[in-house]
Amino acid sequence: MKQTEFSKSRRIFLEQLKSTAGASVLLRAAAVLGIGSNAIGCGGSSNASPTPPTNPPTSQINIPRPGDWPSEVGSGTSVVILGGGIAGMCAAYEMQQLGFGVTVIEASSAVGGRCRTYRAGDVVDELDSQQLCTFDTDDSLYFNPGPARIPHHHEFILGYCRDFGVALEPFINSNSSSLFHSSQAFAGRPQVARRVMHDVRGYIGDLLAQAIQSGSLASQLSGVDTNSLLNLVQVFADLDQNYSYQGSERSGFLGQEDTGSRARFTQLEPIELGQLLSSNFWQFQLDFNQSLNQQATMLQPVGGMDNIARAFEQRVNQNILTNCEVQRIENTSQGVLVEYIDEFQTVNSINADFAICTIPATVLRGIDNNFSSQHSNVIQQFEYTQSGKLAFQSPRFWESQHNIYGGISWTDQAITQVWYPSANLGSASGIIVGAYTFADNAGQTFANLAPSARVDWGIQQGAALHIDYATSVSRGLSVAWPKIPFQLGGWGRSEPSTLTTPDGNVMFAGEHVSQLQGWQEGAVMSAYQAIDSIVQRING
Amino acid sequence: MKQTEFSKSRRIFLEQLKSTAGASVLLRAAAVLGIGSNAIGCGGSSNASPTPPTNPPTSQINIPRPGDWPSEVGSGTSVVILGGGIAGMCAAYEMQQLGFGVTVIEASSAVGGRCRTYRAGDVVDELDSQQLCTFDTDDSLYFNPGPARIPHHHEFILGYCRDFGVALEPFINSNSSSLFHSSQAFAGRPQVARRVMHDVRGYIGDLLAQAIQSGSLASQLSGVDTNSLLNLVQVFADLDQNYSYQGSERSGFLGQEDTGSRARFTQLEPIELGQLLSSNFWQFQLDFNQSLNQQATMLQPVGGMDNIARAFEQRVNQNILTNCEVQRIENTSQGVLVEYIDEFQTVNSINADFAICTIPATVLRGIDNNFSSQHSNVIQQFEYTQSGKLAFQSPRFWESQHNIYGGISWTDQAITQVWYPSANLGSASGIIVGAYTFADNAGQTFANLAPSARVDWGIQQGAALHIDYATSVSRGLSVAWPKIPFQLGGWGRSEPSTLTTPDGNVMFAGEHVSQLQGWQEGAVMSAYQAIDSIVQRING
Repeated sequence: MKQTEFSKSRRIFLEQLKSTAGASVLLRAAAVLGIGSNAIGCGGSSNASPTPPTNPPTSQINIPRPGDWPSEVGSGTSVVILGGGIAGMCAAYEMQQLGFGVTVIEASSAVGGRCRTYRAGDVVDELDSQQLCTFDTDDSLYFNPGPARIPHHHEFILGYCRDFGVALEPFINSNSSSLFHSSQAFAGRPQVARRVMHDVRGYIGDLLAQAIQSGSLASQLSGVDTNSLLNLVQVFADLDQNYSYQGSERSGFLGQEDTGSRARFTQLEPIELGQLLSSNFWQFQLDFNQSLNQQATMLQPVGGMDNIARAFEQRVNQNILTNCEVQRIENTSQGVLVEYIDEFQTVNSINADFAICTIPATVLRGIDNNFSSQHSNVIQQFEYTQSGKLAFQSPRFWESQHNIYGGISWTDQAITQVWYPSANLGSASGIIVGAYTFADNAGQTFANLAPSARVDWGIQQGAALHIDYATSVSRGLSVAWPKIPFQLGGWGRSEPSTLTTPDGNVMFAGEHVSQLQGWQEGAVMSAYQAIDSIVQRING
Repeated sequence: MKQTEFSKSRRIFLEQLKSTAGASVLLRAAAVLGIGSNAIGCGGSSNASPTPPTNPPTSQINIPRPGDWPSEVGSGTSVVILGGGIAGMCAAYEMQQLGFGVTVIEASSAVGGRCRTYRAGDVVDELDSQQLCTFDTDDSLYFNPGPARIPHHHEFILGYCRDFGVALEPFINSNSSSLFHSSQAFAGRPQVARRVMHDVRGYIGDLLAQAIQSGSLASQLSGVDTNSLLNLVQVFADLDQNYSYQGSERSGFLGQEDTGSRARFTQLEPIELGQLLSSNFWQFQLDFNQSLNQQATMLQPVGGMDNIARAFEQRVNQNILTNCEVQRIENTSQGVLVEYIDEFQTVNSINADFAICTIPATVLRGIDNNFSSQHSNVIQQFEYTQSGKLAFQSPRFWESQHNIYGGISWTDQAITQVWYPSANLGSASGIIVGAYTFADNAGQTFANLAPSARVDWGIQQGAALHIDYATSVSRGLSVAWPKIPFQLGGWGRSEPSTLTTPDGNVMFAGEHVSQLQGWQEGAVMSAYQAIDSIVQRING
């Protein structure tokens, strides 16, 4: 769905809501839907291509957050939280502070949801397969199959890291020495990112400078100091003294993709504009890291993303029921009744004043409930990405042989990307992400392969980026989110729509019910939204 | 000096050399001078403004390196290395491997030269002052007053880090949430970098798209798929469906410079083009990180730059004489005689077959010698930057209050920059670089201030970037390189010229004698060059 259509449908939804709901519901819904922004959240490297901005609203949007709620407002009120991912754990943690009686019901054996990390000896359970993680035992050898990077402005999740002492380090999202590969261009030879990036800048600047000098933009530039503008363009694009692009040291040197090059200071000729255009790198990869949620600085927890979930767990510890699968969710006259089956296959039930349901819609639609038809319909039809990732352990040939320290190489093959590790630079081994599928077809294809076949598939394609790939990478480990129990999908990408409003005493949360879908920050914001709804209900 | 003039004078120098020297000297000189590139090395944030490229030479330039020299070529040959900075230590380490008898003479009490790190309890000695470093004792609280970042393609220095087990981590050189401040624009209010960066991209794309659509570039675009080009520009600049720039989410949201903003999703209006032009950010700061030596990924040793010098020291240990100040360097009929005064004020002399002199020209011109007049003249007139840095310890308000994790904020004030720490993100305290002066006037002014006055000066100016600066930063520590004994300057910036050729049995090395002046990689390459000269002399 194009961004424009998405924004439009959100606005239509708000109009409909306006006729049936009060102002505060509207305001909250607007916040959750992110009207006024084009920030479709996405942890999945799907850079929204040209995103026409909407007009900013004149009033500020109130995003609820800790501090907004009266202390002890939850005293005497019970809440059952369904799902122990980031949304659920965040809600549990905050509601404990507010005096609520909190119980978290988590279907799997550990909290964190998709915020998880695999290390030596861990087992990846999919619906029809099991994989043992055979990485070497080493703090630096881990794989984040779900969220793996945190934008610097995701201040809620970063605030928890700071408060909880979860150590953070830079995540290298952009690296001018990484590669762009297209099987359709440059005879299939990968290009160093800096060359593509700066030759594109060069041509853009060169052409604009010519247009300015020709006077053809005179009416647009009325009142503008064109000399300053020309100089700006010259610096921007590294044009020569005649405002012409004749190549740039920014684009790098001959052989710079390999260490030990003997031509270290031999400047490259610019790639022809026609070749740059036909390579199609610009459609997606080239400006990926310009989008707000992918701009530097990006961060990661030292040693694995699951440190965040672990930190929440330590603070909510005694109120978490793991290995407990929800069987039924029922709005009652008293509040909410939740039935669940525990690890001994015993059916239990729990009554609470409120429930916060963070179960992914893919899973929730298989759980018995008495939700409104409006809520049920949204849950039934909620779409998720079919994303998956594949990781390998390898000697760090990308560093020692190619001067690549972190960042992402791109290819038009189904693996789409290779991620190089951002930490422990210069050490012997590392974990690379050798595939990140998120488009529907690619994701489904990936999920339908047996784990061993995914490994072969990933190695074969990775070899188009690195000739030394097949002999270097090993111990492949994959996660296809559509096949992960209790997740059954990557991240939500339908309109949250009615799920942003309570169904009786059940509030919905999770990244899919936020304006930052696919991001942990969205999960946190959805939890705040759910808490806010409950607090407002209590306070009448 | 403009880049073009610089390149030109290098070429003239080579022409002169050609008439007097053999081909191999010429080739080596070309390598050291970096002809064919416009990579004026510079660790000092001085982004070469529009750098017209020279034509790449058709032949590859031979940069000597380990592996080029016969094993045990140095057996029976002695070399005295003057100065234990990176150039000297690298030469000593490599020549040990080749069987040379090596002695390093270092004037100060520790090796490393300008590759140094200050931590709690260290003393900064300047010619006329002493400062005690009062940072808290903590591995993360350190200050690199000299080199502080390593480009990913500086493969020699990075290779040593890898070989020696010096742990590396990302250095965040570019951060879209850092600030641009001009006292002449925006009523002195700092602007978030992303807004300036992406509004500039937006206008450039908007204007170019209009020129393309008007047909005024038809002749330049003959044969080019203008539809694809328009789409490229649209993605590049985040234009709307009409190829018009109407603001972008890339430029951020209202109040995003502060955490806790209630307007998290309120898109900003674009800054007016005229304002962007008159603010002059584009002259220097805006595209600083596009230059080859400033592009991501940048790296730093974990815990301080001096770990590199320490690692060399461990491997050259028994052959280093510290606290020994060279008094005279003399070419003799047998080789080289060096007189030095040791810490007990005793004058000693040492004879060797060869010397590698890495002493900065600023210091060398005060040392008695019998160099040729050609070498002496270059040494006498060699110019250095007058650079200096000022550091503070502070609670990390930039992270917790402004979402700034690493990177550099810029100002048109004399402090020029504020660097935020790249490591231990999310921890309580950090060391920021609160001033980095390198222009002559600014550097001299800074050097002439007493250390306590530098601190006041830096705090006053920093407050223009951060309102919470004066109440947050403390324990200021400064280094003015022109006043540091045995350095007397920042980094060399004159033509290396004759210093790239031996004077008798004395070879010159150091960053100033390289095509990467101001960078440790240049120091390493200059050492390789000196070794190469000696090996060629031995092999006749």
